[in-house]
Amino acid sequence: MRRLFIVPILTALAVGGWPQDGRASHPRLLLTAGDVANITATMHESPGFMRSLARTRTRVDRYFASDPDVPAPMDAGGGYSHEQHKRNGIAIREAGIVYQLTGDRRYAGHARSLLLAYAELYPGLGEHPMKKEQAPGRLFWQSLNESVWLVNAIQGYDAIVGTLSDNEKSAIEEGLLRPMADFLSVESPQTFDRIHNHGTWAAAAVGMTGYTLDDSAYVEMALYGLNGDGKAGFIRQIDLLLSPDGYYAEGPYYQRYALMPLVVFARSIHNNDPERKIFEYRGGLLLKAIYACIELSYGGLFFPINDAVRGKGLDTVELRHGVAIAYAMTGDPKLLSVARMQKSFVLTSDGFKAAMAADHGKAEPYEHRSMLLRDGPSGEQGGLAILRNGAGPGHQALVFKATAQGMGHGHFDKLHWIFYDNGNEIVADYGAARFLNIERKNGGRYLPENESWAKQTVAHNTLVVDGESHFGARLAVGERFHPDVLYFGSDKGVHVAAASMDGAYEDVSFSRTLVLADGVLADGLVVVDVLDVTGSGARQYDLPVHFKGQVIATTPPLRAKTEELLPLGSANGYQHLWLRAETEVAADALFSMTWLAENRFYTYSIQVEEPLQVLFAELGANDPQINLRREQAVILRMRSTGDSTFVSTLEVHGEYDAAEESTIGSEGSITAIEHFSGGDGALVKIANRRSGERYLALSNQSGHDLEHAITIAGREFEWSGFYGLFDRNGPIRK
Amino acid sequence: MRRLFIVPILTALAVGGWPQDGRASHPRLLLTAGDVANITATMHESPGFMRSLARTRTRVDRYFASDPDVPAPMDAGGGYSHEQHKRNGIAIREAGIVYQLTGDRRYAGHARSLLLAYAELYPGLGEHPMKKEQAPGRLFWQSLNESVWLVNAIQGYDAIVGTLSDNEKSAIEEGLLRPMADFLSVESPQTFDRIHNHGTWAAAAVGMTGYTLDDSAYVEMALYGLNGDGKAGFIRQIDLLLSPDGYYAEGPYYQRYALMPLVVFARSIHNNDPERKIFEYRGGLLLKAIYACIELSYGGLFFPINDAVRGKGLDTVELRHGVAIAYAMTGDPKLLSVARMQKSFVLTSDGFKAAMAADHGKAEPYEHRSMLLRDGPSGEQGGLAILRNGAGPGHQALVFKATAQGMGHGHFDKLHWIFYDNGNEIVADYGAARFLNIERKNGGRYLPENESWAKQTVAHNTLVVDGESHFGARLAVGERFHPDVLYFGSDKGVHVAAASMDGAYEDVSFSRTLVLADGVLADGLVVVDVLDVTGSGARQYDLPVHFKGQVIATTPPLRAKTEELLPLGSANGYQHLWLRAETEVAADALFSMTWLAENRFYTYSIQVEEPLQVLFAELGANDPQINLRREQAVILRMRSTGDSTFVSTLEVHGEYDAAEESTIGSEGSITAIEHFSGGDGALVKIANRRSGERYLALSNQSGHDLEHAITIAGREFEWSGFYGLFDRNGPIRK
Repeated sequence: MRRLFIVPILTALAVGGWPQDGRASHPRLLLTAGDVANITATMHESPGFMRSLARTRTRVDRYFASDPDVPAPMDAGGGYSHEQHKRNGIAIREAGIVYQLTGDRRYAGHARSLLLAYAELYPGLGEHPMKKEQAPGRLFWQSLNESVWLVNAIQGYDAIVGTLSDNEKSAIEEGLLRPMADFLSVESPQTFDRIHNHGTWAAAAVGMTGYTLDDSAYVEMALYGLNGDGKAGFIRQIDLLLSPDGYYAEGPYYQRYALMPLVVFARSIHNNDPERKIFEYRGGLLLKAIYACIELSYGGLFFPINDAVRGKGLDTVELRHGVAIAYAMTGDPKLLSVARMQKSFVLTSDGFKAAMAADHGKAEPYEHRSMLLRDGPSGEQGGLAILRNGAGPGHQALVFKATAQGMGHGHFDKLHWIFYDNGNEIVADYGAARFLNIERKNGGRYLPENESWAKQTVAHNTLVVDGESHFGARLAVGERFHPDVLYFGSDKGVHVAAASMDGAYEDVSFSRTLVLADGVLADGLVVVDVLDVTGSGARQYDLPVHFKGQVIATTPPLRAKTEELLPLGSANGYQHLWLRAETEVAADALFSMTWLAENRFYTYSIQVEEPLQVLFAELGANDPQINLRREQAVILRMRSTGDSTFVSTLEVHGEYDAAEESTIGSEGSITAIEHFSGGDGALVKIANRRSGERYLALSNQSGHDLEHAITIAGREFEWSGFYGLFDRNGPIRK
Repeated sequence: MRRLFIVPILTALAVGGWPQDGRASHPRLLLTAGDVANITATMHESPGFMRSLARTRTRVDRYFASDPDVPAPMDAGGGYSHEQHKRNGIAIREAGIVYQLTGDRRYAGHARSLLLAYAELYPGLGEHPMKKEQAPGRLFWQSLNESVWLVNAIQGYDAIVGTLSDNEKSAIEEGLLRPMADFLSVESPQTFDRIHNHGTWAAAAVGMTGYTLDDSAYVEMALYGLNGDGKAGFIRQIDLLLSPDGYYAEGPYYQRYALMPLVVFARSIHNNDPERKIFEYRGGLLLKAIYACIELSYGGLFFPINDAVRGKGLDTVELRHGVAIAYAMTGDPKLLSVARMQKSFVLTSDGFKAAMAADHGKAEPYEHRSMLLRDGPSGEQGGLAILRNGAGPGHQALVFKATAQGMGHGHFDKLHWIFYDNGNEIVADYGAARFLNIERKNGGRYLPENESWAKQTVAHNTLVVDGESHFGARLAVGERFHPDVLYFGSDKGVHVAAASMDGAYEDVSFSRTLVLADGVLADGLVVVDVLDVTGSGARQYDLPVHFKGQVIATTPPLRAKTEELLPLGSANGYQHLWLRAETEVAADALFSMTWLAENRFYTYSIQVEEPLQVLFAELGANDPQINLRREQAVILRMRSTGDSTFVSTLEVHGEYDAAEESTIGSEGSITAIEHFSGGDGALVKIANRRSGERYLALSNQSGHDLEHAITIAGREFEWSGFYGLFDRNGPIRK
């Protein structure tokens, strides 16, 4: 069972191919022997693929110009030994693939020498000296990196195994591959059987090792968990980690990361066990997850919700694999324009297909659209609504986060929203407090401020009650509750999503409707935000708006602190905010704030029935290591004795052109926002300096056929379904 | 004398051309009748020019879709009436030009109706109601805008005069053009005869009006001043405002602005009085000024020294004119790649030549290079040294500001420097505190913080003595002194500039040598900064470094203020800085600070003989209107009893790749910086973790043939000229 049978057809190696004769042939993971024959015969017809191969070959040549160091494990993330082992793992894979695609045995030799060095090193390793709370590895401070390493190395081994002597094979398999696969599986049950991206990486590493070594025990464990009952393992992970819409519970940043083991292992399963029809599983869910990843982005960068390192996007290696596989499976020409944006192609059969098609001009534009991605294994744990006006580079996108908690990387930010315009994040999410792989910033790991700031509710654009975070910032509590999506609709320039949340606070529930409308509720583009809070007794409601840009003016003006800054609070994230300025707004009066971001103006306006305190805050207090970025927020604070409604708008307007020295439309046009409830719904009246009054009626009932009415000041507003739109004359066509 | 003779050859209008018969023909300013004939005959061969014409035509069509408003003057910069008059002025010019190039008389009619409306309005206007300290206009709050308006409008009038009836001509000339030209000249002697960009705009407006109306009195005034003696006027302005290298005293932002009247009036002179050979004047100085403008930029944006609104660069309309004229005069194909970056072409004969050549593939790359631009009318008032390593998009550029004061827009920043790398400003200049044309920010004018912060010495990267700005921030004192350039040299990856400054402080002089070296004084690219201060008695020397990016780590670590922020001082700009963190560094110990900007690391290191106090400050204190951007600086503070030397380095290193999750070289490599003086020079020893010791010897004497020597620890260092470079073995080839 532990012996691998290899057919030594070395004569085929000169052209880098292997005869395609079933399980005995190599390679067999992302690239099969048949693929190699096909690619090498026709790859000169794809300049894009040839460029990617040439770049990889040059990189491998440089890397092996001298013998790569295989250091004793010592450093945490970002440190020398950590980065060197990561590089070595990738080099093993790349050298193997270049060997297959060029037939040049020197590359097989490069991979072999590294694998033999690791086979020498690995058996003597204990737990990594820099282990922390995470499950420790041996080569790396956390076992996750070890899984990633093996996913790379096994592909390299698979590519060169035919060039190895029996002694070499035995040394590498017994000294490195099996001990590592065993370490990641039977010796690490808490990770391996976990429904989590760490578990997915471990399953992929062990399962791909199983296919390569022809060891079906590894494959079975990887698919169905350590004891084979299917309560853990890859199939269960697909069941539980992805929603029916392909949304991954932890959010886009980890969706990308989890995508890699999902798709590369799935591709390996498809190549070795096609009868499992893994890409058809759960209605083609893995392909939906790849598409969802693409949709979870703006300007090529992922929405930075939950723990997310900013700057990650569609050009990552995970998406290069994902998009190539999705194209190979679907032939969807829109995916080719994403592939072209990625600039290079993965050196697999799928990458080759995508490159060839892109080079033959088959790409069609990828147009984002408004959509709801339901969350939870059965799609009933809330969802992420993406409202988009337009689809081009500067389009507006509003992301409404009504998802479940998302495990340990989830933030306490129920019914939070972010907004993009003109290529920029305008209403922002901080993302994670982390400098990935930068050794001197806490070893590249999450910073303490990730817990004390980034995860806290006040770091987001949603309701904070009595200065405390949702669920008291307790993960176990957060995982017991989730929002409910009340409505999602997108039609002719009007995009609407609504959700409700119970359980974030004792005795306080809230629901929120966000509308993105172009030229309907105001002259230009406007976001309308209706946040209904149901509570009892005297409570403090804070609504933060984290915005990017330079404040131009507010009405009423802010009183700035000029001589001293003090923290806004002492806990739950407030301790990190300096109170920079403040003002008060009378009941039923409008507060508005205009800011400039790049060359466009934004005006946020709010009007409520209670007096408002406006707090303008800057991030950076209680930050001894200067770990936090300098960001800013305005916080609208209301003292309520029960139910209250925050109704606010965000206008996009004007243009500031420094080159032409011209400024137009630098002031917002909304002059009043009134909110009425009664009958079977609520009505928001938006008074506009230029285009007069507009009305948004909300029923909070989504049935399209239900009729609603509300009478305000003698005028009756009648509509059917969730919402209605009116101007001074009557209903506006939806 | 006040009557214009027009030859009414209306038959030629159908194709937009006029016979070329000398002074009687129109147009005659930037576009002559002959140009029009030539352009209209061949313009279909230049898609670039056709696109620019089509865009302008569309803009004009839209503008005149309804009758443009000609409001009563009311608002300051950025306000409605201000912007509307600006737009109208441009529309008159553009409608006129489109008429000439298309022959479509509707465009002439558009320009005519606006001109007639202004001829109606103008005579009744008094001083503008929003006038401030600047010389007031009538249409605008400052007369400067009125000059700009006339430069535009006269081009439009020149283009359509042939379509006007005698009554119309008379109405426009007597009601608008002459009254405005008179107002800007004889009625505003303090502006018109001023050697200043406002004077240049006034001269251009009046002179171009003179050519158009065939009124040589206006032309003479414009060229030689109100009383014609040449002590003022355009020729004197060229003599005094531009250095022999084409550097304009106020710096690049105003150089761009002043360039427009300089080149458009010069082009008008060239077309009407070719015998003046204006473009050959002072060794072709106007062309040098255009080239200097191009060199005063990085990544297409101007260096933001002195009063400068950020975001201005080579794509401005001023540079579109300048580059087109320079190309027409020189045929230099490198200018065409600047023109292509500008995306559109001016609709003049010069723009047409550039467009045609660019469209025929004649562009060659514009490669920036290291250079010294001397300042002052005779080039003896210091200069601006631009040190560049490479020339491509991510090259390094160091700008050493050893220029004279630069009049009222100059900052108190003698021997200041800024640094660019990787497309970004890394060591920064704040620029001006101003939101150009944004009405709600002080009417779009300079903000109070421009005086209290942006001009002050501490807002720059240069020496502050006893917390006071250079010259006590008094312009009149600053104009009495200027730095002296001691050395400038650029050779094989080593770029060196040195200058000295006396008079910025009583009893304190300082000199500074800045070296930009690639692979010579360290493994990679490094800036070495040697700042020698000569003083007497106990003084406090502050050296601020304004840097852009996120602090990663310092050695020794900073102690951050976590619970309260207080201003760093009470005056001279210090009142605007919050003290965010601090630390102390022992005498002869190294302080280093690493930060991350985009995907690259930067390490600033300093080591001095005295103990250092390190102050980390953030901008924003005493800023009641939230006018300041949130910027940061580290300030190195030393208490000296006389002469002291700051020796510091800035290393560029490593890479942070979020997409690939890889980080390399995140730590600087310099471990010690020692400074020795003796013999006839000084020696800086730079110890480097990887490449060992390197030495920079400085003689402070620039003669190439002078031999120097210094003996340190028994080793003799010998070199000739200003500087020498050594490693552990001996001299390094220069």
